[in-house]
Amino acid sequence: MSELSVEHLLGIKYLKANDIDVIFKTADHFKEVINRPIKKVPSLRDITIANLFFENSTRTKLSFELAEKRLSADVINFSASQSSVKKGETLIDTVNNILSMKVDIVVMRHPNVGAGVFLSKHVDAKIINAGDGTHEHPTQALLDSYSIREKLGSVKGKKILIVGDVLHSRVALSNIFALQLQGATVKVCGPTTLIPKYISSLGVTVETNLKKALEWCDVANVLRVQHERMDIKYFPSTREYTQLFGINKEILDNLGKKIVIMHPGPINRGVEITSDVADSNESIILNQVENGVAVRMAVIYLLAQQIKR
Amino acid sequence: MSELSVEHLLGIKYLKANDIDVIFKTADHFKEVINRPIKKVPSLRDITIANLFFENSTRTKLSFELAEKRLSADVINFSASQSSVKKGETLIDTVNNILSMKVDIVVMRHPNVGAGVFLSKHVDAKIINAGDGTHEHPTQALLDSYSIREKLGSVKGKKILIVGDVLHSRVALSNIFALQLQGATVKVCGPTTLIPKYISSLGVTVETNLKKALEWCDVANVLRVQHERMDIKYFPSTREYTQLFGINKEILDNLGKKIVIMHPGPINRGVEITSDVADSNESIILNQVENGVAVRMAVIYLLAQQIKR
Amino acid sequence: MSELSVEHLLGIKYLKANDIDVIFKTADHFKEVINRPIKKVPSLRDITIANLFFENSTRTKLSFELAEKRLSADVINFSASQSSVKKGETLIDTVNNILSMKVDIVVMRHPNVGAGVFLSKHVDAKIINAGDGTHEHPTQALLDSYSIREKLGSVKGKKILIVGDVLHSRVALSNIFALQLQGATVKVCGPTTLIPKYISSLGVTVETNLKKALEWCDVANVLRVQHERMDIKYFPSTREYTQLFGINKEILDNLGKKIVIMHPGPINRGVEITSDVADSNESIILNQVENGVAVRMAVIYLLAQQIKR
Repeated sequence: MSELSVEHLLGIKYLKANDIDVIFKTADHFKEVINRPIKKVPSLRDITIANLFFENSTRTKLSFELAEKRLSADVINFSASQSSVKKGETLIDTVNNILSMKVDIVVMRHPNVGAGVFLSKHVDAKIINAGDGTHEHPTQALLDSYSIREKLGSVKGKKILIVGDVLHSRVALSNIFALQLQGATVKVCGPTTLIPKYISSLGVTVETNLKKALEWCDVANVLRVQHERMDIKYFPSTREYTQLFGINKEILDNLGKKIVIMHPGPINRGVEITSDVADSNESIILNQVENGVAVRMAVIYLLAQQIKR
Repeated sequence: MSELSVEHLLGIKYLKANDIDVIFKTADHFKEVINRPIKKVPSLRDITIANLFFENSTRTKLSFELAEKRLSADVINFSASQSSVKKGETLIDTVNNILSMKVDIVVMRHPNVGAGVFLSKHVDAKIINAGDGTHEHPTQALLDSYSIREKLGSVKGKKILIVGDVLHSRVALSNIFALQLQGATVKVCGPTTLIPKYISSLGVTVETNLKKALEWCDVANVLRVQHERMDIKYFPSTREYTQLFGINKEILDNLGKKIVIMHPGPINRGVEITSDVADSNESIILNQVENGVAVRMAVIYLLAQQIKR
Repeated sequence: MSELSVEHLLGIKYLKANDIDVIFKTADHFKEVINRPIKKVPSLRDITIANLFFENSTRTKLSFELAEKRLSADVINFSASQSSVKKGETLIDTVNNILSMKVDIVVMRHPNVGAGVFLSKHVDAKIINAGDGTHEHPTQALLDSYSIREKLGSVKGKKILIVGDVLHSRVALSNIFALQLQGATVKVCGPTTLIPKYISSLGVTVETNLKKALEWCDVANVLRVQHERMDIKYFPSTREYTQLFGINKEILDNLGKKIVIMHPGPINRGVEITSDVADSNESIILNQVENGVAVRMAVIYLLAQQIKR
């Protein structure tokens, strides 16, 4: 099967294993394209894409925008701070207005869980979820798995550790769904206050000792300490966090094996990860960023193929 | 005559009836274009357009930007919040600087009445007024009339009601000029505090009873309640406004006839209009948005034909 | 030699005289291009350029963006207010992330002196300094010299006066370097509190009497009074500044000769320069803006030629 089983990319939990295969094979092609001198293809010259960001974003927005331009789509950007949202317009009205201008695909980041699903039921466009609250961030999970596959040959059978504030992380949740769908085993490690109670029901184990957790894994995906999402009364201080869960060269050198280091960015150097680790040969952090453009091109391209033209 | 009688689009009051015919016939063509799979024409590849928005805007700015891109023009965006305006530069200096970079057409929204007219006398570019204070918003009036013509066959002889805060509305004033020029009759309905005293001198009648006003009309163009423009001491409370001038299904069902419902957006659902009315078959609100792109393409295209090349 | 001796444009102080010749000859070509009906060339269709502005800017950003689009490069814009910079990410991380998305050239404005030099040593992209603190603004100096050359035939042997707040001006410093490299003589005139002590070590003389300074020069480059950069305790009041150093028609008429008037913009009309002078036949202020696009096209084009493709 070389087609997606879904009509939108709302979350990894709606995908089948074959969907991920299709996306990755398509991304392989686009990764080759963006490493050519001319980094563009004319595939989507007839497609208009609106990027609706109701929350600030740098890398995700830039990555989508580059992916869209390299597919030759027409791109319009819409950010909440300039928008009618402030004037009390409903989300459906805002989006329907944009769609009346003949937009084919909407890439949306929104602070509310389920905003993408809600939208997909009420408007006539392909929806790509670029992050909905603390819920899902599917293209991040796809680029993370794609980067593991690139580094280790495959995701299947690998032991993946997610370190940090799992409770508030849409990156963690989408990663868990994606990794399990591809046959990896997932463990999380972080302060108990920042591990959601439902985690075991997802088939994920918890290890609060960082050293033991690192000894177990093939890959450590280190989450960003997101001060802006923290509830101050539960969280250990940053200093305590770094002491207990910060990844540094010493702890890695004592493992007796190499593990792959990932981070979704932006990095707080010296907090959740030290500079020597972030910049080491085991780190694939910048590969993740590069692969993000190729994976997003693949998702957009595959959804666009479903549009009648 | 297939050419415009004006060199800029500063306001409907400067147009002749034939100008509106020319714009609408050109818009018919572009409406067909934007409903094709490839929604673009290469017509203005040699034209650079600057969008200067000294006030926030979502839909108007997006609509112009899409219109420009679908004509293949080069587009640069300039918004006041990032601008030298804060540093005390004059409007003419700001615009002359932009024009020195070889810009052919300026689309401008500005808080001051007459800003477009002033600019057109001092700089060497085509000026399109995208809203000047409470004065005119000509492309909105054009797309409104175009939508009536599309729904009812023509504007001539139709009875058009404008409901709401006419005093602070550039949409109302431009609509009155455009509708009368095409042979329609215009009535306004709203709180007496929000109807300007000069309205009768424009040949427009006032009806303060909403039910009577709706019984009279073929089309009701419902203005947005613009809290941000209101002088708090004159305005009825929002609750009172909704009771007296809000359009709901019950009042329409009791008319004994169908009338066309329009709204320039963004909608305050439940305030000036209820959801069932906004989303009804008589509502052409989203058609207005769609037609906005085609009408703006037509205006830009026709003005660009006057540029020596 | 028709190639640049540098790999980045970090400051005029790193250039050789031949580099300026090469840039100007290339700019001559692009100036012709942007005065054609179709103002574009397809030269850089395979190049992606990121504009990173960590300080507000209007004309410089617009000018670079137009230059890039007229070379047919792919352009992505990144401004600090929307960025991860607020989240504590380092400059190198921010830029490396952007580069991982396959960006070839970075145009950067940054509040810190030396930010461009620092970046050029740590990332793999061509860097163009669009202003680093009070240090250099090389493309402004290039367009200023290009405009003098256009008006007077050459820069060599000319007497150039820089009037105003030299202490806080990156425009002044880059101009001094560029003018001297081309064989011009430079004098500065302004309040002694706003002339840096090191100025004589650069081979620049100081004249505090405006009339004498103007009698000496062929060209007066009038700096903007930048209230936002001033240390309030040193600066004469604006009224005093205008009395002592403001350029008006009367003072120019009494010189007994014509001198060329320049200003980098935005102008404070009536403060450092009166309107009749800014708009006179001797003023080349708008030519500077026009030439800015051509000169920036030249710089970008020449650096892009060094990229292996």
